[in-house]
Amino acid sequence: MKAELVNPFLEATKNVIGTMASTEATPGKPHLKEGIKTWGEVTGIIGLAGENVMGNMILSFDKASILDIVSKMLMEEFTEINDDIVDATGELTNMISGGAKPALSEQGYKLDMATPVVIVGKDVEMTQLTKAPIIVIPFSTPVGQFVVEACLTSR
Amino acid sequence: MKAELVNPFLEATKNVIGTMASTEATPGKPHLKEGIKTWGEVTGIIGLAGENVMGNMILSFDKASILDIVSKMLMEEFTEINDDIVDATGELTNMISGGAKPALSEQGYKLDMATPVVIVGKDVEMTQLTKAPIIVIPFSTPVGQFVVEACLTSR
Repeated sequence: MKAELVNPFLEATKNVIGTMASTEATPGKPHLKEGIKTWGEVTGIIGLAGENVMGNMILSFDKASILDIVSKMLMEEFTEINDDIVDATGELTNMISGGAKPALSEQGYKLDMATPVVIVGKDVEMTQLTKAPIIVIPFSTPVGQFVVEACLTSR
Repeated sequence: MKAELVNPFLEATKNVIGTMASTEATPGKPHLKEGIKTWGEVTGIIGLAGENVMGNMILSFDKASILDIVSKMLMEEFTEINDDIVDATGELTNMISGGAKPALSEQGYKLDMATPVVIVGKDVEMTQLTKAPIIVIPFSTPVGQFVVEACLTSR
């Protein structure tokens, strides 16, 4: 995955979190993923697939950040990870990948999105079957942190 | 997901396990998924996406079945779930969804496959963001069991 592909995911993340939760998501320095564990407590995975390209986008939140984001999205205070948090994580995964799609398409990555899958649990062993590097974009919110992991390769 | 969509996944599973591992995978009665946990010890997830359709195929093996299948695939005896087992599970997920693709296309479900993700762990909480039913096809091998879960909906 080329470094310039960071931007579509980075911009889409800032926009979606800003719009849906009135929360500023401040990006840190992108780096390559090491290890094979889920980063946070709640993790959304969405397959990305086109005729010439395949990959996944993964969004993984610590407990503080996702509880705060979903509390603001749904205008109701959440203190535990429950079905509403899981559903909202899936929706955010959908919206962020959907937000990145037009810019990816302009760069020649024409793809559609699969149905999001949400995993609950920290340090769950999760491996992508790819030799391509997986880019990690860390984000901070006023109360916590989350990461966006993206991997996209030609077939 | 319509019941007739069971067949592409069922046939592809029998063919791939038969060809790659010289193992007969005997299908049981398909049913709808209940609950939100991974079924087996090693679980491959692959996103399915097209212009008009989206979903996932999930393949989840108990320890006995995947150790036996991969031992036969790689002609080497495996007794623990390691990186080779994880990689082979990803490959099987790829091959089975790829095997189902032509028959799905004939039924009007034109889609491409994302990059497989493999989860290790039993009873991992894993939810798909869909209101569509998830079909489960159980399989027996001579030494163990596994399931194929498939969900495919129009956009």
